Amino acid sequence: MKIKPGMSVDELVSGMEGCGFGARRLAEAVNIYSSMLSGDYTKFFTLSGAMVPAGMRNIISNLILNGHIDVLVTTGANMVHDLIESFSSHRLGDPEAEDVCLRQEGVSRIYDVYVTDEQFVDFEELMQGIFPEGDGPISGTQLLKHIGSQIEDKDSILRAAADRDIPVFCPALSDSMIGLQAWLFRQTRKLNLDALSEVKDIVDICYSARKAGIVIVGGGVPKNFSLQSMLVTPNSFELAIQLTTDHPEPGGLSGATLSEAISWGKISSSARYVTVYGDATINLPLMVTAALSRVEER
Amino acid sequence: MKIKPGMSVDELVSGMEGCGFGARRLAEAVNIYSSMLSGDYTKFFTLSGAMVPAGMRNIISNLILNGHIDVLVTTGANMVHDLIESFSSHRLGDPEAEDVCLRQEGVSRIYDVYVTDEQFVDFEELMQGIFPEGDGPISGTQLLKHIGSQIEDKDSILRAAADRDIPVFCPALSDSMIGLQAWLFRQTRKLNLDALSEVKDIVDICYSARKAGIVIVGGGVPKNFSLQSMLVTPNSFELAIQLTTDHPEPGGLSGATLSEAISWGKISSSARYVTVYGDATINLPLMVTAALSRVEER
Amino acid sequence: MKIKPGMSVDELVSGMEGCGFGARRLAEAVNIYSSMLSGDYTKFFTLSGAMVPAGMRNIISNLILNGHIDVLVTTGANMVHDLIESFSSHRLGDPEAEDVCLRQEGVSRIYDVYVTDEQFVDFEELMQGIFPEGDGPISGTQLLKHIGSQIEDKDSILRAAADRDIPVFCPALSDSMIGLQAWLFRQTRKLNLDALSEVKDIVDICYSARKAGIVIVGGGVPKNFSLQSMLVTPNSFELAIQLTTDHPEPGGLSGATLSEAISWGKISSSARYVTVYGDATINLPLMVTAALSRVEER
Amino acid sequence: MKIKPGMSVDELVSGMEGCGFGARRLAEAVNIYSSMLSGDYTKFFTLSGAMVPAGMRNIISNLILNGHIDVLVTTGANMVHDLIESFSSHRLGDPEAEDVCLRQEGVSRIYDVYVTDEQFVDFEELMQGIFPEGDGPISGTQLLKHIGSQIEDKDSILRAAADRDIPVFCPALSDSMIGLQAWLFRQTRKLNLDALSEVKDIVDICYSARKAGIVIVGGGVPKNFSLQSMLVTPNSFELAIQLTTDHPEPGGLSGATLSEAISWGKISSSARYVTVYGDATINLPLMVTAALSRVEER
Repeated sequence: MKIKPGMSVDELVSGMEGCGFGARRLAEAVNIYSSMLSGDYTKFFTLSGAMVPAGMRNIISNLILNGHIDVLVTTGANMVHDLIESFSSHRLGDPEAEDVCLRQEGVSRIYDVYVTDEQFVDFEELMQGIFPEGDGPISGTQLLKHIGSQIEDKDSILRAAADRDIPVFCPALSDSMIGLQAWLFRQTRKLNLDALSEVKDIVDICYSARKAGIVIVGGGVPKNFSLQSMLVTPNSFELAIQLTTDHPEPGGLSGATLSEAISWGKISSSARYVTVYGDATINLPLMVTAALSRVEER
Repeated sequence: MKIKPGMSVDELVSGMEGCGFGARRLAEAVNIYSSMLSGDYTKFFTLSGAMVPAGMRNIISNLILNGHIDVLVTTGANMVHDLIESFSSHRLGDPEAEDVCLRQEGVSRIYDVYVTDEQFVDFEELMQGIFPEGDGPISGTQLLKHIGSQIEDKDSILRAAADRDIPVFCPALSDSMIGLQAWLFRQTRKLNLDALSEVKDIVDICYSARKAGIVIVGGGVPKNFSLQSMLVTPNSFELAIQLTTDHPEPGGLSGATLSEAISWGKISSSARYVTVYGDATINLPLMVTAALSRVEER
Repeated sequence: MKIKPGMSVDELVSGMEGCGFGARRLAEAVNIYSSMLSGDYTKFFTLSGAMVPAGMRNIISNLILNGHIDVLVTTGANMVHDLIESFSSHRLGDPEAEDVCLRQEGVSRIYDVYVTDEQFVDFEELMQGIFPEGDGPISGTQLLKHIGSQIEDKDSILRAAADRDIPVFCPALSDSMIGLQAWLFRQTRKLNLDALSEVKDIVDICYSARKAGIVIVGGGVPKNFSLQSMLVTPNSFELAIQLTTDHPEPGGLSGATLSEAISWGKISSSARYVTVYGDATINLPLMVTAALSRVEER
Repeated sequence: MKIKPGMSVDELVSGMEGCGFGARRLAEAVNIYSSMLSGDYTKFFTLSGAMVPAGMRNIISNLILNGHIDVLVTTGANMVHDLIESFSSHRLGDPEAEDVCLRQEGVSRIYDVYVTDEQFVDFEELMQGIFPEGDGPISGTQLLKHIGSQIEDKDSILRAAADRDIPVFCPALSDSMIGLQAWLFRQTRKLNLDALSEVKDIVDICYSARKAGIVIVGGGVPKNFSLQSMLVTPNSFELAIQLTTDHPEPGGLSGATLSEAISWGKISSSARYVTVYGDATINLPLMVTAALSRVEER
C-alpha cells in the first residue's frame, strides 16, 4: 500500500485491499457496504456501545436521512444520549479523572465523555412532557417514534427516524433512562408498554425483505435481536458487516463470528460478510465515508 | 507465589494475593466475594455471555439454592439454554467447524458448543405448553417464575429461583427465543407482557437494600439494568466484582471500570470493588469455589 | 463529527477531534505526529508485529526516504520479509485455511498472508551471497546496513535506510531468519556478530538528541530497546505515540501505557503522548496520511 | 460443571473438561501438560511478559529444579527481575498511581508492581561484580549460566537453571538492563558477547530431541526463537500449549494460533496443542498446579 499527502478516505481504503489483517478486513467492509448501499437491500443497522456520546450521532442520523438505513436496532442508552444531545452537548473529559470527585461535582463519566446531573434533570423534564398518556398497549418502537416526532433538533437520530418513518427497535428499552422515566411517568399516569409487539414488527420486516443486509456496530442485544428475527423467517442476510472490539474465543455473542451466524441460518450460506476488529469510533466513520464516496460517484 | 501438587483452589487463590496483574485481581475478588457471602448484603448477580451453554449453569443454580443470590439479572439467551438443558444437554463441538455444513446438519454453533434444531423444536413444544394465558399484564419476572415452577430439572436456574422465590430479571426478554416463542403463543392466545413493571420491582429491591453487593459476569444489559436501578435510589453498591473480557478504552459499558460507576453514583464512593479481566468460564468457577471454601469454614 | 463523501483523510481525522474513545486518541496522535514531523526532533520509529507482510513496507520506506525517521528499531522478522518482498511478493491467503494442507503445499501462513518455501529458498540464496565475511566484530546495525546497500528494490526499508544512512536496530536479530542464515553462513565462513555494540550506538543517539519523539508500532523488543536506551541518558522522549492491540491490565510491556514509561523516566513528565488501541494496519496508514497532509501544506 | 467448597485445583480443572470456551481450553492444556511432564519429551518453556515481577518466579524455578523444564527461553527483563528478587522484593503498588509523582519518588512502575531506583543501583553493583572479564566470545546462554551460578538465592530462576545445567536462552539480551550493564562493564573491561552461538546451541537441542513439547507463556521473541529453531530441523513439536492475552486477528506472532505454526512446520501436523486466552498470572499457576497434582499421583 502506498499513501500520499492529501489523499481521500476512499483512496486510502482502496489501498488497503492488497494488505493483510485489519486493513484488508476494512477494505472488504467498504466493498460490501458499497454493494449494500447501491443495491436493492433492506438495510438493517444495529448500534451498541456508547456511540452517541462518542460523537457518532450525526453519522447515523445522516445515514437515515439519506435513505441508507431501513431498520435501526439500538440500545436505550444511545437513544437517551441522542435526546440529551438535542438540547445540550456532551463534554469531553479525562478518562483518568478521579471518579469520587466527579460524583461530588455531579458529573457522570462515559470513559472520556462527561454528562452532568443538570443534563439528566433537563432530560427528565423533556421526557415527562413528551410521554404519551394512554390505555392501549404501545410498543417501544411506537413510543420512540412518538418521542422522535417531538424533537426539534434535526441532527437527532430519533427525529430523523420519525421524519423518514424508519422504525427504531430497542428491545431493552426498560434498561435505560427512557425506561426509568417511563416508570416514573406511570406512577401518576397511564402508559402500557408492550414487550412483545416489536417482535412481530421486526419479524414482519424480515419476512418481507427480498434481500437483506446488515451493519452491526458493537454486538449486544441489537445484534442478537436482528439476527434472531431473521432466523424465524425463510430469509437470511446476504450481506453482513460487523465492527467490534470483542473476539470469538470467550464465546459471547458480541464477539461471535458472522460465520457462526451461518450455522444458525441467520446469515445466508452464500452471504458476503466480514468482521472488522477494532474501535468503531474509528472504523465506522472510515467505512461510511469511503462507501458513500463510491456510491455518490455512481 | 508458591504452588504444590494437590493444593486446594482456596490455597491457590490465597497465594495469588501477593502477585501482580490478574492474579492479584482474582485474589481481591475472592476476598470481596467472601465478605459479600458472609455479610448482611442484598446480593445481586448478573449473568451475560453464553455462560449456560458453556457449562456454568450448575454453579449459578447452586448459588441460588444455597442462598447466595438474592437478585438474578440475566439475558434471555442464558434462560433459553437453561430450559434446553432441563431436557437435553448441549454438545461440545469444534470452534473451527465449517458453518455451512453445520447448518445442513441442523446444528447451531455457540463457539465450541452445539445446539441442534431438534432441541429447538423440543424447546418450542415445552414453551408453548408452559406459557400462562391471561388478560392481565404480567412482568418478565413473573413469567420467568411461572416457567421455572414448571421445570422438573432441579439443576435448572429458573427452577432454583422459583423454588427459592428469587426474582430473575431479564429486561431484554423479547430478545431471545423465549420472546420469539411468546410472540408465537400470542398469535392464538392472550399474553400481555408488560415492559415496565420489572423496573418498579428491581428499584423497590434497591430501595430496601440496607447494604448491597453485586457480581457482574460479562457486562451487557444485565450490568446496566442493575446499576441504573440502584442509581435512582439513595443507596449504592458497597461491594462490586466484575468478570469481563472487555477493556475500558473502547468506551462500552461492558468494559467500563467499576470506578466509572462511582462517578454515576451507582457504586458507593467508599465501595470495595475489583474487575478481573479474562474468560469467566475460568474465573467464575475459581472465584466461587475459593469464596465458598472460606465461607463454609467459618 | 460529520462526514461527507469524498472527504480527505486529514479532514476525517480532524473531525474526530471532538469525539470520544479511539477517535479522539487517533486525532491526538495525528496532532502529536504533525508536531514531531515539523519540529526539530530526533525521530524514533519502532516496528513490531508482522507489519511488512501486512503491506506496511512502503509506508515505512517512504517515511525514511522523506527524512521522517531518524532511528528505526524493529524485529528481525520484519526485515526478513522486507528482503523477501525485494524479489517477490507475499500472497494474500485465507486465515481459516487448513494449516496441515498448507504445509503439504509448502506454504507458511501469517494470519491471512502466505509465504512459500520457494521464497525462503530464494531468501537463503540471497542471504548467503550477501553476508560479509570477516574477522572483526560487526554489529547488527552494521550488518543490516551492509545488507540494505546490496538490495536493488528501492521500496525496501533496508535499502532506504542504507541510502539515507539511517541506523536500523534489531536487538533480537538472531531471533529471525536472518539470524538463522547468519548461523548457517558461519558454519563455513567467518562472521563475528557482536551483541553489545548496538547498545552503545543507540545510547549515543539518545544522548545527543536535543529533543526526541517516538512512534511505537506494536510494542515488543523494539519498544523496550528504544525506551531503555533513553533511560540511561539525562534525556527523555518529549513526544510519544503508541499504536497497539494490547491492553495495560495483563501487565506486559507491549500494552503498558506511555504514562507508565514516565515513572521510569523514559518519557518526559511534560511529554505529549497518546496510545491508539487497535490494528496498526488501519491506524498507521491513517495517522501517517493525515500527518503528512498537514506537514506538506505548511 | 459442579463445584464444591474445599475442592482441589485438579478437581476444579477436571470439571472444566465438559465445559465450553476458556474452561475447556484450560482443561485441555492440563491434559497436554500432564502428558508432557510424564512422557519422554524434551520440554521447552518460553516466558514473556512481566511474569517475574508479577510473582511467577518461584513456579518457574521449581519447575526447573524438579526436572520439568529442559530449555528455558525468556526475555532479558524477566531475568533482570529474577536477579533483583534475589536481593530484595518487588513491591505491590497502584496501577492508577500518578506516574509523574512516582518518578519524583524514584519508583518505576510495572502495571501494579513497583521497583525502586535503589533496587536498580543495587542491581548495577551486583552485575558489575559478576560479569566475567575475558577475550574469548561468550554466548548469552553461557553468560546467564555464569551469572546464575553466582546467585545465592535458591528461588532464583537463573540459579536453579545453573544448578541443574538447564540452558537459558535470551536472544534479545541486549534489550534489557543486563544488556545495558554489560555495555557499561565493557566500557572499562573486556566482554565479547557473541550474538549467534546461541542459535547453534538451541538448534542442536532441537535436532537431538526425539520428542519435543513446549509451553509458551506470552509470545514475543521467546516464542519465535523456540519455534524457528525447531523449524530448521527435521523435527517439530508434538505437544504445545500457549497462554496468551493476544488474539489472532491483528496478525502478530504473539497472538498467532498454534495451528498457524503447523503451516510453517514448527509444530507437527499430528501435534496435540491448545491456546488458553487470558492472563497467565492466573492460568499458569492453575495449569501447573493441576498438572503436577496428576503427575505426582502416578
